[in-house]
Amino acid sequence: MPDDTDRFRLHVVSEALRLFSEKGYEATSVDEIAEAAGISRRTFFRQFRSKEDVVFADHEILLAQAQEYLAADHDDPWDAVCDAAMIVFERFSQWNDMATRRYAVVHEVPALRDREIVTGFRYERLFVDYLRRALPGEPDLSMVQFSASVTATHNYLLRRMVRDGAEATSEDLRAALADIRRGVGRRDAPAADGDGEMVVAVFPRGTAPRRVAELLRRRLEEDE
Amino acid sequence: MPDDTDRFRLHVVSEALRLFSEKGYEATSVDEIAEAAGISRRTFFRQFRSKEDVVFADHEILLAQAQEYLAADHDDPWDAVCDAAMIVFERFSQWNDMATRRYAVVHEVPALRDREIVTGFRYERLFVDYLRRALPGEPDLSMVQFSASVTATHNYLLRRMVRDGAEATSEDLRAALADIRRGVGRRDAPAADGDGEMVVAVFPRGTAPRRVAELLRRRLEEDE
Repeated sequence: MPDDTDRFRLHVVSEALRLFSEKGYEATSVDEIAEAAGISRRTFFRQFRSKEDVVFADHEILLAQAQEYLAADHDDPWDAVCDAAMIVFERFSQWNDMATRRYAVVHEVPALRDREIVTGFRYERLFVDYLRRALPGEPDLSMVQFSASVTATHNYLLRRMVRDGAEATSEDLRAALADIRRGVGRRDAPAADGDGEMVVAVFPRGTAPRRVAELLRRRLEEDE
Repeated sequence: MPDDTDRFRLHVVSEALRLFSEKGYEATSVDEIAEAAGISRRTFFRQFRSKEDVVFADHEILLAQAQEYLAADHDDPWDAVCDAAMIVFERFSQWNDMATRRYAVVHEVPALRDREIVTGFRYERLFVDYLRRALPGEPDLSMVQFSASVTATHNYLLRRMVRDGAEATSEDLRAALADIRRGVGRRDAPAADGDGEMVVAVFPRGTAPRRVAELLRRRLEEDE
């Protein structure tokens, strides 16, 4: 949960994004942001290095929260990364107004677009670094691909939610992440009921392996 | 293939990166780059907007080449994206000295690291945009995930090649991209010999679908 400093910062971010979306990013001064947020210019610069920083300050808070979440103990590091992405997504669902305003502001200022890409990449890097520590035996490339897929999926659905209203929900993200999760590592969970049971699958030669996997998954889930 | 302007630009890029790696990025002036490349300051600024631009000018050339490649006719757009990534990778294999120098320079200057992330993202965006045009019926998220995986894989192996010498080859990339390719779309190629044949697979219930797919793939490839 955000602490008091985070809440204070979020208040400033929110006021700044409101001003940017009303007046434009370039036309809004730090003094106007400080006034709208009811703080002094000095306090602004103690909390944020620049006008640009304030646009992404909520990401700083969420990156710290994702990092904190991952630092706890987890049975399954792949699941933990998916859960961290869910936490970020759900937080943005709550902050939807702010995210929507940022979307509008960022897409008018190329420097902010670049900064958004770099910010998004920091989640990817956080996930890869965590997986490397948590799964030292795992092939590096699997962790890189997994983190890239999780981050791209999160960003894509977040953008749809922010841009198109409620079209993308956290349930969509949960389902998409579960699909990605199925593609990596092994689940060590004991197979409860079906332990020792065998599955026989018959399919035309030439069927793509992913398609086989997908059909099997659906059938196996139906059986549960 | 690079044309004359590209070759000229690459010559300047190469001289600039050599100077940056010898003297440091901040300590090298545009005048020194121009002198080393045997051009005037004016010619430098006709070709590049800034000292920062020159660091990534070869990416501009490769992005244009990838775009040109994708604009041609392709039977399979997924394969075309993998081939475009291969083209970029192989070009960097030829330019290995330059890529190695850039690696050293970029990792000392935070602004250049950010710029590298943004540049990498432009390949991802190029791939997504192309797939959307080429496969209008395909789910958007598949194309986003595919492009993110291809780009992350390319960048990871490129970084290993540049940082650790010849450890990652274009054969590694080809194999990794083929794995990603198997995960999406359908291959419409006619199943030659095995047409109409069926495969029967037996495996313990609870085996992860991806693992089933992987085992099947290996067995089916052995049979070929």
